[in-house]
Amino acid sequence: MADTSREWRLAKRPHGEPELDCFELHERDVPVPERGEVLIRVRYLSVDPYMRGRMRDSESYADPWAVGDPLRGGVVGEVAASESDRYDVGDLVSGRGTWADYTVLDAADVTAVDPDIADLPAYLGTLGMPGRTAYFGLLEVGEPKPGDTVVVSGAAGAVGSTVGQIAKLNGCRVVGFAGSREKTAWLTEDLGFDAAIDYRAREDYAAALEEAAPGGVDVYFDNVGGPITDAVFTKLNRDARVAVCGQIAHYNDEEVPTGPRKLPSLIATRARVEGLLVRDFATRHDEANDRLARWVDDGDIVHRETIVEGLENAPDAFLGLFAGDNVGKQVVEVSTPP
Amino acid sequence: MADTSREWRLAKRPHGEPELDCFELHERDVPVPERGEVLIRVRYLSVDPYMRGRMRDSESYADPWAVGDPLRGGVVGEVAASESDRYDVGDLVSGRGTWADYTVLDAADVTAVDPDIADLPAYLGTLGMPGRTAYFGLLEVGEPKPGDTVVVSGAAGAVGSTVGQIAKLNGCRVVGFAGSREKTAWLTEDLGFDAAIDYRAREDYAAALEEAAPGGVDVYFDNVGGPITDAVFTKLNRDARVAVCGQIAHYNDEEVPTGPRKLPSLIATRARVEGLLVRDFATRHDEANDRLARWVDDGDIVHRETIVEGLENAPDAFLGLFAGDNVGKQVVEVSTPP
Repeated sequence: MADTSREWRLAKRPHGEPELDCFELHERDVPVPERGEVLIRVRYLSVDPYMRGRMRDSESYADPWAVGDPLRGGVVGEVAASESDRYDVGDLVSGRGTWADYTVLDAADVTAVDPDIADLPAYLGTLGMPGRTAYFGLLEVGEPKPGDTVVVSGAAGAVGSTVGQIAKLNGCRVVGFAGSREKTAWLTEDLGFDAAIDYRAREDYAAALEEAAPGGVDVYFDNVGGPITDAVFTKLNRDARVAVCGQIAHYNDEEVPTGPRKLPSLIATRARVEGLLVRDFATRHDEANDRLARWVDDGDIVHRETIVEGLENAPDAFLGLFAGDNVGKQVVEVSTPP
Repeated sequence: MADTSREWRLAKRPHGEPELDCFELHERDVPVPERGEVLIRVRYLSVDPYMRGRMRDSESYADPWAVGDPLRGGVVGEVAASESDRYDVGDLVSGRGTWADYTVLDAADVTAVDPDIADLPAYLGTLGMPGRTAYFGLLEVGEPKPGDTVVVSGAAGAVGSTVGQIAKLNGCRVVGFAGSREKTAWLTEDLGFDAAIDYRAREDYAAALEEAAPGGVDVYFDNVGGPITDAVFTKLNRDARVAVCGQIAHYNDEEVPTGPRKLPSLIATRARVEGLLVRDFATRHDEANDRLARWVDDGDIVHRETIVEGLENAPDAFLGLFAGDNVGKQVVEVSTPP
């Protein structure tokens, strides 16, 4: 085991789109687990759009990071030292750690992963927090019924790609918005989406949606916001449900963004619009994990990860989320098997 | 009984704020009821903001009126001729008729009213459609819990004034937005609102709300939209409920209005925003009517009507809704007791 561990810290708060000098790679001694803790040698770490919110100096649903704090997020790796009876050295686990070579976690917050079901990166995507977000957000907030038309924005991302497939498993017609021809082809050819709209190739999203979903929209799972969402709202059916999961189009905004008002249209549709956070379903995480693992194991759900190599490239991978560089889950490979 | 009946018709579609030349008073023979129908001598008719939507040439939740059509809405009056076993001449009833001296209704769609509980105009307000809208909208969409802070816009209107009082009966703290000192005084002194904000006297609605509801907003019952709603959205608590009942600030807009985007804030609050129409609760109208009548009879709910005299002034009364002329329900007195 190495003596030192690299760790990314927040060097300064971004204004608008983050730049690389907002991040600082620090070298420190490998941390030492205390009683009840485990030391993880990180194999993959997760970069997620919501982390942009934690870089702001304002309260939101996640506490803001202080300048100088290590960046945190999902990690998967192997136990390198254990002060817990729960895990032995060499066990493969996932949890919430730091963007680092080594990270210490409370053993109670760690979950064993099974490499026979999927390779490790999947446990940061479809078999991790994004998969659970898709599962609870679609089923509990979106409430899809067989025959419903479900529209997903950010459909080729970790959450969106899982949402669309769960909707198909529930008998829905599924339409995705994604940002390249490669992505839309993946959605329709590999994931079973009924239609996919390349929002970078189309200009009139409402017209594109009219073609792809002529019967209107019963469930909208929104990861994006902005003009895509504006168009979808004009096509909502009576009693439609909108699950507001993410608004990546607005995460770098410095001012409150403006756009078409949506409340007037809600009276005619009686649509329900509701924000969601996966942590509200924490007591049911095992249910989602088990169900998602079974779907993946049975081949009912396809997953994909975009892997950037090297901890030193983690900020690039994070910034790539806002450029839409990832197909499926964006992860960073920190180390290879020992 | 007179031989002729005056009747207001839509002369042309308004653009922006309606003007008086959009309406035309027509004189015709008194209509004759057929089997199963009753002829009503109208005593009071209702003008409601939602009628503006029916003057547009576009589908919404209510079918558009054709140019030349009689204007329709709630009426209360006495049966002048009956071809039904259900009602006798002289019975006092309410129903949905035309803006006219006499109107024919299907007896099955008519409801008897009890002048011992309240004077006739109340049956177009708190004891009529607006009261039922308040009842179902607040209780079924707003889901108030004791101790919740409930904010109502258009609080001195027929719907809003009833919403606030039902919320008080449910143990909530109630804050209303209204457009004059007379209205806010009525809310706090006669109706038991905990606080009322005169939005014409204040400029910073968010600051006013911070004073009136320092603990934030759990339920927002929106009749108005626009800047008041923008301010309330910045104060929504975790798991807040927003019942979108009306958006009078936008009914005269010719273009889709723009404003601050609200979806990004829903993730942190997990607020639920839902449109409502009272007709979705049609099977439960008797429940609401009975409950509201009991509250009024017991003195638990105060009601008030603003009465414009004369059928010839009905368009003025309608236009006055957009100027905020009414305190409580705006009605038009069409005739006096025979």
